[in-house]
Amino acid sequence: MRPADPVEHLVAQLARLPGMGRRSARRAALRLLMEPEQRLRPLAEALRAAAEAVRPCGRCGNLDSSDPCRLCTDPERDQGLLCVVEGVADLWALERAHAHHGAYHVLGGSLSALAGVGPEELRIAPLLARVAEGGVREVILALPATVEGQSTAHYLADRLRPLGVALSRPAQGVPVGGALDALDEGTLATALRARREA
Amino acid sequence: MRPADPVEHLVAQLARLPGMGRRSARRAALRLLMEPEQRLRPLAEALRAAAEAVRPCGRCGNLDSSDPCRLCTDPERDQGLLCVVEGVADLWALERAHAHHGAYHVLGGSLSALAGVGPEELRIAPLLARVAEGGVREVILALPATVEGQSTAHYLADRLRPLGVALSRPAQGVPVGGALDALDEGTLATALRARREA
Repeated sequence: MRPADPVEHLVAQLARLPGMGRRSARRAALRLLMEPEQRLRPLAEALRAAAEAVRPCGRCGNLDSSDPCRLCTDPERDQGLLCVVEGVADLWALERAHAHHGAYHVLGGSLSALAGVGPEELRIAPLLARVAEGGVREVILALPATVEGQSTAHYLADRLRPLGVALSRPAQGVPVGGALDALDEGTLATALRARREA
Repeated sequence: MRPADPVEHLVAQLARLPGMGRRSARRAALRLLMEPEQRLRPLAEALRAAAEAVRPCGRCGNLDSSDPCRLCTDPERDQGLLCVVEGVADLWALERAHAHHGAYHVLGGSLSALAGVGPEELRIAPLLARVAEGGVREVILALPATVEGQSTAHYLADRLRPLGVALSRPAQGVPVGGALDALDEGTLATALRARREA
């Protein structure tokens, strides 16, 4: 086939979405093209609106249509309790879980010598400035339980401790609903070491 | 969280794509929003271009940016060999396989008493008119091997036969590279009945 260029181009763009292969992109393109008014135009419009409105928050790094974002300006939230996360996806996950009712700070990644990510590549200086400014009493280092995430947490702890702020990190252990025999050994060992009175 | 409305709206639109769940739509939205110039705007632009340019071909029903489409006007293709398919997805699949070098006719579905799809709901009248016009010597009924697809093929055969055109359908059997023990019994039985000299 020599398909219409706009069709092939649309398939190619859809195939760049995470989780989409060439095959599902083709199915998606077809579905959109079969119902342009019900499907294609609303998606195009949603993208246009998002491109126009959504910006990273200058304070916390969240993506929102206002800057500072609604989380940073919400008077109901405890702005003295600051949760540091690697990325916006983690922030969204914590919000969906209603796990945190304070403020956030998005680092934009984790330190990685291998990938050449140093402290300057991350939003670490703004974090230190934000804490030095006062008003933050506790920083939760909610970084991934990977080597990079944990060395980033160590690095941040070293830099934040002199500022006289309480530091914490999420508990590690058996996930809620998790079967023991499905867990990796590291998690099991950590969970037993950190056992609590029943 | 009370996420930005444009963000939630974008996630909702992405989640309507086939194969996308809520979770993957969120990941996709985030990826798009993190790289608006490299990802979001190109996708929006591809959608806009496709919405503008792509239309169903008035002759065969293919989706293309010209009408009649490039398959219908290609002098290299055998316009006397007409392949009837259920949908544009099937047409694209045959084209990817380079399986057919003639013309197409997209029915837009299969007959289904249950779903209330009668001959008037499908592009059957245009097919009959097209064959009656002359110039078509063989019609390949490449309809799905489902009950609906096969009864549609029967119906079309009954209507086309009086027009003096040769009728055929694709062979049924073991898929190329297919292991016998992974096949359903219907396919196996059909393949053995239709066995050919080795």
